[in-house]
Amino acid sequence: MQVICLDLEGVLVPEVWLRLAEETGIDALRATTRDISDYDALMQQRLGLLREHGLNLQSILAVIDRMQPLPGAKAFLDELREHFQVIILSDTFYEFAQPLMAKLAWPTLLCHRLDISPEGHLANYLLRQTDAKRKSVMALQQLNYRVLAAGDSYNDTTMLAAADAGFLFRAPENVVTEFPQFPVTSDYETLHDWFLEAAENSKHDIFR
Amino acid sequence: MQVICLDLEGVLVPEVWLRLAEETGIDALRATTRDISDYDALMQQRLGLLREHGLNLQSILAVIDRMQPLPGAKAFLDELREHFQVIILSDTFYEFAQPLMAKLAWPTLLCHRLDISPEGHLANYLLRQTDAKRKSVMALQQLNYRVLAAGDSYNDTTMLAAADAGFLFRAPENVVTEFPQFPVTSDYETLHDWFLEAAENSKHDIFR
Repeated sequence: MQVICLDLEGVLVPEVWLRLAEETGIDALRATTRDISDYDALMQQRLGLLREHGLNLQSILAVIDRMQPLPGAKAFLDELREHFQVIILSDTFYEFAQPLMAKLAWPTLLCHRLDISPEGHLANYLLRQTDAKRKSVMALQQLNYRVLAAGDSYNDTTMLAAADAGFLFRAPENVVTEFPQFPVTSDYETLHDWFLEAAENSKHDIFR
Repeated sequence: MQVICLDLEGVLVPEVWLRLAEETGIDALRATTRDISDYDALMQQRLGLLREHGLNLQSILAVIDRMQPLPGAKAFLDELREHFQVIILSDTFYEFAQPLMAKLAWPTLLCHRLDISPEGHLANYLLRQTDAKRKSVMALQQLNYRVLAAGDSYNDTTMLAAADAGFLFRAPENVVTEFPQFPVTSDYETLHDWFLEAAENSKHDIFR
């Protein structure tokens, strides 16, 4: 029996912070862990920038509400969910993800959350746990599931390594180079085929 | 952050073995663990009866295909999924559950599976693990989720006890009497309200 674990941003939906940077014109919101390697420092900068520009949860959600899943993502996920249990493992926050989850027909999502002030401002972020993706894969394995996983970036690589089969999807060149052990593809059809091949008993009913 | 864990049969859909007994006229399929306390002996009797009567997976699925979620179950689940992560914990088998999962819009389901022969006969059942519901609750708690759970019968009580809040839904009188520590209700509206009350920060956005 197996579970498929998918990253969210870059795999099924666009990068939220990048879209926020584009739509608000706040260029510093483009910074990622490649620019500021300390995740907490990066997040405090992001939250500080949003507060400085008077952007509360409502105005951020107005941007996210206009975002759509990546072309083909919904059909890929729908097809996958008919044959496998699929769980989305993401380092995003439930508050940001909710409008996109609605557009993906509410797959199960394990991520983090924000601390929102009574006035709707982003007071802080609340990590559910560190290295959450890898720990989720291990928890599923403890439940006797084989885990097949796909992601696009550095924060997915511990998840891919812990999984019984791990694939990179539309990963940047540096990630592809640094992690040659993970097959890489940029189209949903190939990723779907790889999941089928990696699944036990794939010749019979693969809903298991 | 919390996850809601729901039992399937009796909570969201009718009892599958009971429906199979009704539709096939094989009365002995009505037996439950109340009649044969050894689960393996019960399952071997069920599988033996199906084989004796020449019922393969295809003919069983023809019965299950005609089953519908309990009245109100889909709306209850849809509403819940907009605000919580919901995972179905069941001792059913993926092969039996698939048509019902389609009618519930593919919530995540953790259960067991069947060993189907190349001719489509039910050769055996494959438990993913013993006491699977309780272990799933504990795995989610290890991921720093609070777990709110609801079920209807004996095989749910270890799940309800392990959960941070546990509720009985349409439970038979003997279960209600034996487990007075779990509040009991028979309507979805009350269960929904109890989940909201049990959720942290329920006054703010409860999608967390």
